[in-house]
Amino acid sequence: MNETIQHLLNHRSIRKFKQHQLDEETIETLIKAAQAASTSSYQQAYAIIGVEDEGLKRQLVDVASGQRYVAENSYFFVFCMDYHKHTLAAELAGGDVSRTIETTEALVVGAVDAGLAAQNLVVAAESLGYGTVYIGSLRNDARRVSELLQLPDHVVPLFGVAVGLPDQQPGKKPRLPMDAVFHRNTYTDDDTMRELLTGYEESTSSYYGERTGGQRTEGWVKQMAASMHEPKRTYLREFLKEKQIAKD
Amino acid sequence: MNETIQHLLNHRSIRKFKQHQLDEETIETLIKAAQAASTSSYQQAYAIIGVEDEGLKRQLVDVASGQRYVAENSYFFVFCMDYHKHTLAAELAGGDVSRTIETTEALVVGAVDAGLAAQNLVVAAESLGYGTVYIGSLRNDARRVSELLQLPDHVVPLFGVAVGLPDQQPGKKPRLPMDAVFHRNTYTDDDTMRELLTGYEESTSSYYGERTGGQRTEGWVKQMAASMHEPKRTYLREFLKEKQIAKD
Repeated sequence: MNETIQHLLNHRSIRKFKQHQLDEETIETLIKAAQAASTSSYQQAYAIIGVEDEGLKRQLVDVASGQRYVAENSYFFVFCMDYHKHTLAAELAGGDVSRTIETTEALVVGAVDAGLAAQNLVVAAESLGYGTVYIGSLRNDARRVSELLQLPDHVVPLFGVAVGLPDQQPGKKPRLPMDAVFHRNTYTDDDTMRELLTGYEESTSSYYGERTGGQRTEGWVKQMAASMHEPKRTYLREFLKEKQIAKD
Repeated sequence: MNETIQHLLNHRSIRKFKQHQLDEETIETLIKAAQAASTSSYQQAYAIIGVEDEGLKRQLVDVASGQRYVAENSYFFVFCMDYHKHTLAAELAGGDVSRTIETTEALVVGAVDAGLAAQNLVVAAESLGYGTVYIGSLRNDARRVSELLQLPDHVVPLFGVAVGLPDQQPGKKPRLPMDAVFHRNTYTDDDTMRELLTGYEESTSSYYGERTGGQRTEGWVKQMAASMHEPKRTYLREFLKEKQIAKD
């Protein structure tokens, strides 16, 4: 197994960082790595906002339900879906791309493009010894994030990535059994899936039990049933429409 | 610069592969790398279908507008958004997560989760000397892909990844200037963006001119204005609703 794959397999989210700032060279290396990722039909339908202003960072902590590591890190990136530049490009070329941006297809492209770029940035950062954590809770109030970062129409913040020197060594949360994620030719039948999930409930229950001294005993199955019971961030569809994305 | 970052920066999509099959150990290493990526709220909202059947692969070529490398490779993965396992988990725990899956938020989570996992798989494959290419054109007819792979409700194919030993050495397509993708604290103003895009039009025009012996002279700006003029894959929203995803 090579070093790159070792880095990938050793990934865990880091939520406590040592006091330290990224230097410019490292920031540029991380952005270059992000930009090197594949992108749908050459669209590069994402933007990365580097949040350097301490006041802004603190306001993002509020959006992210008070997660302090949104501010306390070496650098904080916000990944956005971005079709503003395509709109400007179309204007320059005397065209109009607005109907394309209004499709659900454009939403999928933007989310996937942002995901590929972000994961390259994360892999690059971890290969340099940094820890990282994704901050999906920026979507608690994407409208507020958009105001804070003054994002134009056709730009929607999707998630943050905090980067810093690790000040903790958390364990790796056990993933779903490979057979519950990886299927050959066709999706696995329900009986087999139920068996796999039941086994996973046991292993994750043990994991949480050990980590909490028996305080918490619910595994993945019960956790998902509880945490996904009530819909979250239901304003998102309306907000995307306000941003002129995925209106179809 | 370390080896991992060199791999990331050297990425280019490979569309012609030598005859060769992935062995089981490599397939498992790639899947483990994919699973090690971060996932939103531990949901792991994606599935990977390994397409090994030659007949299936040929039918996917048809969906992908005849791109032969969808069949002619060492292995072909289809990445899907997957909430079927959460539905089964909720049943096992006596709960109901259907309303959560019906939100646009769930669509974003599924697309980003699949993107992060796929990019880890791609990085792992390239670190082992393989070439890769993403196949977004599976979304030309995601309904047909879903039928071919017998995907249940709540599972939607997003894109493919072909892996193989490179039989070509394409150049790297120039990315947008860093300042057009990376913004500090706020999104860059329109005048600056127009300047950056105009410069990029020139550099990409030269790039295409050199590669085609002057046959093609349109750069990124004109290319986007043309290729994004007519909306594509407009059935997608309806198909997601059929799959009980993002119905809000």
